[in-house]
Amino acid sequence: MKFKEKLSALVSERKTVVCVGLDTVSEKLPAHIRKLDNPVLEFNRQIIEATSDLVCAYKPNIAFYESLAPDGIKILKDTISLIPKSVPVIIDAKRGDIGTTSAMYAKAVFEELNGDAVTLSPYLGEDSLAPFFEYKDKFSFVLCVTSNAGAQDFQFLQVDDRPLYHHVAESVLKWNKNDNLGLVVGASYPQKIKEVRSISGNLPFLIPGVGAQGGDLEAAVKFGSDNGESLVVINSSRAVLYASDGLDFAEKAREEVQRLNQIIADLGIY
Amino acid sequence: MKFKEKLSALVSERKTVVCVGLDTVSEKLPAHIRKLDNPVLEFNRQIIEATSDLVCAYKPNIAFYESLAPDGIKILKDTISLIPKSVPVIIDAKRGDIGTTSAMYAKAVFEELNGDAVTLSPYLGEDSLAPFFEYKDKFSFVLCVTSNAGAQDFQFLQVDDRPLYHHVAESVLKWNKNDNLGLVVGASYPQKIKEVRSISGNLPFLIPGVGAQGGDLEAAVKFGSDNGESLVVINSSRAVLYASDGLDFAEKAREEVQRLNQIIADLGIY
Repeated sequence: MKFKEKLSALVSERKTVVCVGLDTVSEKLPAHIRKLDNPVLEFNRQIIEATSDLVCAYKPNIAFYESLAPDGIKILKDTISLIPKSVPVIIDAKRGDIGTTSAMYAKAVFEELNGDAVTLSPYLGEDSLAPFFEYKDKFSFVLCVTSNAGAQDFQFLQVDDRPLYHHVAESVLKWNKNDNLGLVVGASYPQKIKEVRSISGNLPFLIPGVGAQGGDLEAAVKFGSDNGESLVVINSSRAVLYASDGLDFAEKAREEVQRLNQIIADLGIY
Repeated sequence: MKFKEKLSALVSERKTVVCVGLDTVSEKLPAHIRKLDNPVLEFNRQIIEATSDLVCAYKPNIAFYESLAPDGIKILKDTISLIPKSVPVIIDAKRGDIGTTSAMYAKAVFEELNGDAVTLSPYLGEDSLAPFFEYKDKFSFVLCVTSNAGAQDFQFLQVDDRPLYHHVAESVLKWNKNDNLGLVVGASYPQKIKEVRSISGNLPFLIPGVGAQGGDLEAAVKFGSDNGESLVVINSSRAVLYASDGLDFAEKAREEVQRLNQIIADLGIY
């Protein structure tokens, strides 16, 4: 099934737009997990079992697995295989290279790792991302406004009286021939979510930066989805994964997702 | 030894600025290599043995190894271990993510893979790249102008009457507190190499796009190095790796590097 269909089905059924970021760091794992043979995979397994009926997606950031080279990618692949097929997997990779090379990255994330979606970085332009766009059942979220301080360095520069990220949003809208593109819009700037939504048609948004990064969940959902008119995915990583460092970590992770889901339910959008 | 010292030593000793891009694609390997147990590693071994006394660096693009998941990163690590320690390894990764995540990527390329240098993508700004910059003995080449058609989409947009890539070049110059930063400047636009050199002080340039991508080698060396005043690394991948698809592939690869080295020698710069 296409990413957008999987996502829409879960949003309708579960009335949630919460995605859990599987950015697992060995050093932060509970002591009883760290003693095991494959602690990252075991931690992920318990997080997935505790939350997979409550979320609309999972988003592992590939950097956390690459840092466990050379076995990390195997751990990521095994983690993805533990996620129920009905729950889409967004591989946060922020890739972007010349075309022949991007085709290799696309093969890695969509075929080898079996991700449903990916995040991409726009600096090299359309032909650098096209090999991803050609996977019609898969989905690409292109970086637009990010949640970090450095977003100001280039993204906010004015081009024809508008910030560079407006040009990125408009380009992605134009490139969306296969109805499989969206934008990454950080939660740190709620007004920018509203602003980007106003120039992006119905492009789905992936919004990181809620939770440990301090964004505003309610504004992110309302502005990002245009009150339910467009698809939005809100990611939380650390606040869920490390809700407790004890034996009850999975239970506390579940409670944190339930807390986020309740805030969303209270908005009355879904 | 620091990347810049390793590189300078080889440029002085060998009078070359040629780097071989280890972008190995299984489907393009000679038939007799494809029959082996680990064809990519065996091919790389023979290419390295045939050229490691003639080059100033190797540049594996990590995408080609990720596409061989889950074993590809092991193959890349094993390939890097075959390269003589005196020859620096630039891991072409074009990474860039929020700080905590970039720290993971930096660990992956500098510690797990033992690369001497990396390529980075600037869209997320300074704090997204800083974890790489903090490895003082390592080196980061930040994308400035790329060699693909899509470079026009954002890099050429005008910000305060100058293209965006000028702002990137100037930012990298400003960020270069540890004397370990450089720029990626594609070979497709020789005038732009000259132009970027004029605003970048002595930042080393990594210039891909010579050879299969059709750039002009002589102009790249002259303009990129400012006639020998600054460090430049010129990468060739496909024209070297696939100089022949027969039993003589390694010999022909060596001849192609020698041909490039002769063109550089004839310039009389080194």
